[in-house]
Amino acid sequence: MPDVGFLGPEGTFSQEALRLCRAAAGWTPRPYGTISQVYEAALAGEVDAGLVPIENSLEGSVNQTLDLLVHRGGLRMAAEVVLPVRQHLMAAQGTSLADVKGVLSHPQALAQCAAYLQRTFPGVPQEAANSTAQAARRVRDMPGWAAIAPEVAAEIYGLRILSRSIQDVDENYTRFVLLARADAPPTGCDKTSIAFVPPNRPGGLYHLLGEFASRAINLTKIESRPARRGLGDYIILVDFEGHRADPHCQAALEAVKRRVDVFKLFGSYPRWQNGG
Amino acid sequence: MPDVGFLGPEGTFSQEALRLCRAAAGWTPRPYGTISQVYEAALAGEVDAGLVPIENSLEGSVNQTLDLLVHRGGLRMAAEVVLPVRQHLMAAQGTSLADVKGVLSHPQALAQCAAYLQRTFPGVPQEAANSTAQAARRVRDMPGWAAIAPEVAAEIYGLRILSRSIQDVDENYTRFVLLARADAPPTGCDKTSIAFVPPNRPGGLYHLLGEFASRAINLTKIESRPARRGLGDYIILVDFEGHRADPHCQAALEAVKRRVDVFKLFGSYPRWQNGG
Repeated sequence: MPDVGFLGPEGTFSQEALRLCRAAAGWTPRPYGTISQVYEAALAGEVDAGLVPIENSLEGSVNQTLDLLVHRGGLRMAAEVVLPVRQHLMAAQGTSLADVKGVLSHPQALAQCAAYLQRTFPGVPQEAANSTAQAARRVRDMPGWAAIAPEVAAEIYGLRILSRSIQDVDENYTRFVLLARADAPPTGCDKTSIAFVPPNRPGGLYHLLGEFASRAINLTKIESRPARRGLGDYIILVDFEGHRADPHCQAALEAVKRRVDVFKLFGSYPRWQNGG
Repeated sequence: MPDVGFLGPEGTFSQEALRLCRAAAGWTPRPYGTISQVYEAALAGEVDAGLVPIENSLEGSVNQTLDLLVHRGGLRMAAEVVLPVRQHLMAAQGTSLADVKGVLSHPQALAQCAAYLQRTFPGVPQEAANSTAQAARRVRDMPGWAAIAPEVAAEIYGLRILSRSIQDVDENYTRFVLLARADAPPTGCDKTSIAFVPPNRPGGLYHLLGEFASRAINLTKIESRPARRGLGDYIILVDFEGHRADPHCQAALEAVKRRVDVFKLFGSYPRWQNGG
């Protein structure tokens, strides 16, 4: 049975996302400590693929994942998973909401619940943890401290959930990608992710996007990222609908490649379908 | 004398950036605990302006700042400051590099020094702090623990610098913006920042960018951000060269406004000049 790396420890949203990833169904999950370690393990063949977060609907892109794809290379996107984020406030058994004198979590989770924390615990100290799961593990032995973490963390660490679904915005999704040595074959309902450095002149990006517009290819995401030579030099990341083997996509990709110095294909993969 | 809010505590990069901001030269600095608190203080008139980070050349956008500009509104960009990021490893007096058994910092600073940490301290635990300044303050009383923080933090907290300029990439800059109730008058060398939701169809964004390309207006940044209705609905953030009062920029802005449902002007401000 193949192995799949994910961002551990056990009890994070990455583990929940992995359960939803049909491309890795039945594969043996292997937790790693950082996104970079998941990436390197997949690149070295230590695991057959790695599932990593790439984008959150509130927080934006996961820069570490994008930078690995752009600068490290060697892996292709073979699947995507979109997971609704539900954050819960949890603490050691016997703790009640009125006892809470401090809140511990990953800075991103604290940010996702900022309005709830301001309303419910004004003036209560907030501390940063390396992950929501680490926060859950640590508050077991911190009387009066609560963690913000996913439901699975309460199960694993034997905590009591004090308040459910405390994220400020319910429309909160994290998108994960499965990275492997090859991308996926066409299914008829696919997406493709690429990156390129447009010519540095007015209209440089505009004319490249015309290669997609003229072929009625819908862009689902565009982002400029610093190209690591200081601010002002950008690489453009684009997701679009269609598979790189579809003739109109293939023509657009060839045309873009001819007009840029740097071009990177991250891969084509089945578009995530809600509830399926 | 006017007051200017910044992201405290004392001893962070924000304080260093404030010293470089000529638009707020001589103003009284007021530290706040979060970016959101800086923003609200400026909006309420508690301070005359607020300086907040908006973008880092390695890490990408500061999502919290972008979300406040997009969703909260009410303030304009009146200046920008670009600060080179120099991270240092520091610990209590009497500590040497060989004593280090743990490293504490803000997750972004840990990420900026990931290769140095991997090379110099393989297997040594890393813990998250709320800010680089908080890390510096805490390691005073944590024997064997070192903080990653800016130079000014070592001065303030009486620490010894064990290793200088440990960031993995020297081309590391953070861009700050001064937010006030009005933006800046034209200087002849300006930038303008806007956001809009393009029509959701193939070529929707392409045709809007044509309004800039056809007038030879250079884009310096483009980014799609989730519009808080789930993944797939994006707001586009664009920076371009020129002032909104310049006739060709004014014409482009009017044309874009006519073709989109949501349009936000963040302001025009003098372009940051290296060394000046």
